[in-house]
Amino acid sequence: MLGNFTFCNPTKLYFGKDALNGLAEELPKYGKNVLLVYGGGSIKKNGIYDKVVKILKESGKEIYEDSGVMPNPTVDKLKEGVERAKKANADLILAVGGGSVCDYAKAVSVSVNCKDDPWDKYFIRFEEPNCKIIPVGCVLTMVGTGSEMNGGSVITNHAQKLKIGHVFGENVFPRFSILDPEFTYTVPKYQMVSGIYDVMSHILEQYFSGTDDNTSDYIAEGLLRSLIHSANVAIDNPTDYEARSNIMWTATWALNTLIAKGKTTDWMVHMLGQAVAAHTDATHGMTLASVSMPYYRYIMPYGLDKFYRYAINVWDIDAKGKTKEQVASEGLDAMEKWMKKIGLVMSLFDLGATMDMLSGIVESTLIMGGGYKVLDKSEIREILRNSY
Amino acid sequence: MLGNFTFCNPTKLYFGKDALNGLAEELPKYGKNVLLVYGGGSIKKNGIYDKVVKILKESGKEIYEDSGVMPNPTVDKLKEGVERAKKANADLILAVGGGSVCDYAKAVSVSVNCKDDPWDKYFIRFEEPNCKIIPVGCVLTMVGTGSEMNGGSVITNHAQKLKIGHVFGENVFPRFSILDPEFTYTVPKYQMVSGIYDVMSHILEQYFSGTDDNTSDYIAEGLLRSLIHSANVAIDNPTDYEARSNIMWTATWALNTLIAKGKTTDWMVHMLGQAVAAHTDATHGMTLASVSMPYYRYIMPYGLDKFYRYAINVWDIDAKGKTKEQVASEGLDAMEKWMKKIGLVMSLFDLGATMDMLSGIVESTLIMGGGYKVLDKSEIREILRNSY
Repeated sequence: MLGNFTFCNPTKLYFGKDALNGLAEELPKYGKNVLLVYGGGSIKKNGIYDKVVKILKESGKEIYEDSGVMPNPTVDKLKEGVERAKKANADLILAVGGGSVCDYAKAVSVSVNCKDDPWDKYFIRFEEPNCKIIPVGCVLTMVGTGSEMNGGSVITNHAQKLKIGHVFGENVFPRFSILDPEFTYTVPKYQMVSGIYDVMSHILEQYFSGTDDNTSDYIAEGLLRSLIHSANVAIDNPTDYEARSNIMWTATWALNTLIAKGKTTDWMVHMLGQAVAAHTDATHGMTLASVSMPYYRYIMPYGLDKFYRYAINVWDIDAKGKTKEQVASEGLDAMEKWMKKIGLVMSLFDLGATMDMLSGIVESTLIMGGGYKVLDKSEIREILRNSY
Repeated sequence: MLGNFTFCNPTKLYFGKDALNGLAEELPKYGKNVLLVYGGGSIKKNGIYDKVVKILKESGKEIYEDSGVMPNPTVDKLKEGVERAKKANADLILAVGGGSVCDYAKAVSVSVNCKDDPWDKYFIRFEEPNCKIIPVGCVLTMVGTGSEMNGGSVITNHAQKLKIGHVFGENVFPRFSILDPEFTYTVPKYQMVSGIYDVMSHILEQYFSGTDDNTSDYIAEGLLRSLIHSANVAIDNPTDYEARSNIMWTATWALNTLIAKGKTTDWMVHMLGQAVAAHTDATHGMTLASVSMPYYRYIMPYGLDKFYRYAINVWDIDAKGKTKEQVASEGLDAMEKWMKKIGLVMSLFDLGATMDMLSGIVESTLIMGGGYKVLDKSEIREILRNSY
């Protein structure tokens, strides 16, 4: 808890089996024109689209649509969304989908009235919006990114081979989010497992930084234990409401700024994973999974005390009669075993990456400075090579 | 995570050694008239009063004062505060103090424009405000109640021998709170320890309920471990910034609605403690401490699984070769040992209670229904008798 910080998270969450009732409560706060943003159409198959449209109509809203948001939303799609929002004169952008759809909705919300090129301004120069922001609401159908209660937005530029996230301030956070765990039941197992690891990675990126012993680390350990417990249940029984609801709630709190308080935070696994995605368009959580073990084994000596603590407090490693290195290493072994058990992808080959992509992925990897070791390009190459 | 719930906590927190700078950032949002609310004058001795007044003046505010808020704010004081706020035509109520001062400020904020008797409306009939609420801001100088980021307000009626809390909705939450851990350094050790136990009790009241295995319980365990760790440091070195800042942050998250999500919650220790306080005017955290062990030992059989888990996950009890009862009981033993070590009051006699008060305290104890056992009056008498 060293240093100064502020905390403010104004997003209102409606959680549970009746959460969608919250949408009817929220809608009167906004004007008539709603831009309904969604992905490839799965919400039409599982009935969520119909439920949402019914509530929008009952609330007297004019509905404009913007569909086809892809898993890694692109700059080109962002430009299309801006045009659609302008044409709709949107008073509210309602994202119905997973993190990609929420991320995209936020990117549109700060770009509609932006005079500069949004990619350059927000994702290259990391500037804050200085224009009118369209309010965003979310109906979450996939768990992982935490986008439902934060200012994060990740956009991919295929021409530049870059996938970059901007964490906007609280003025860009969704005004409200609808979290019904049952809405996530129809997500394929591959996507569910990928989302679970995205959540774990968010927690670890914040946990593995700093040498102080602060409350955020203790909360992070609690979230990790809950996630591992509920993931084990959900893998065997994907419609276990208790497990799915705990995973959904953990995902939200894993990345809504809370457990970053008093921390420097790392984010190198995300930088590596995003570079992989920029070249392969692979599923986000799986890109993180495939680079994680090589990364953590590489930096373990630089943050040994924290990896030792992680092994004991999260993986219940018995420390008796062992060196710190042994305990820390056994913690990572336990993590790797669990990752394989729940079905995560552990090799870049399985994500469509070929060896001749290696140099390009190294080139696309942004270097962060908040973790236990600031990597150079040769270290990034080594970690990525070990991820194949 | 069973059931439906909403989460919304709009309070903006400024945390750290420069947190008071946040006051200057916030003040322009409010009108000219500020009612400055504080307690017995310790803030004049430690310099916080001067710092706050300087910022208020630099921001062009008209300052009206309401001092003398007592540790257990009374109905009579509340009436006085309402008159002062009316006379000041207050645009903002700025509470500078501990939880009592924040609680009191919130009670005034919903009573100024209230047509009914506030005690009857809010604390007897538990109604919600249907009048204009004056915004409240807090500068926290004592840690424990969590009042800085919730809607809680506890008021004492000596004539009726009742101390009752109302948990108001998010419209009554402080708009902002200033949390500088150094502002708590001058708090006497008795008060610091009392505050630490208040925090622990808040967490336990929420933790010891329900049989489900949800994320809130895992977060609660993290907060408990952090609190115990930092309390052990602070007892030996009260000006250890890291420890005091962690305790302050844990206190806020112990009672800002987060770890109650998906839980029924108990609150019987608070009901017992508040009844004691109504008869003795003793320090809040100490009243909780003195009734806790008799209460937990009494209900342990009714929530054995949770007490077993508590022993292992919070107190590191080795479960090998022991019955569930043994493990659970050893967890409570460890807790009791720790309570004595940090200097908590373990007997009602030490809080000024005499045996002839017993029947009156039993009579004043409200009965809650969210824990592992709904007590009857004879069980309450037994627990209280064991607390002497």
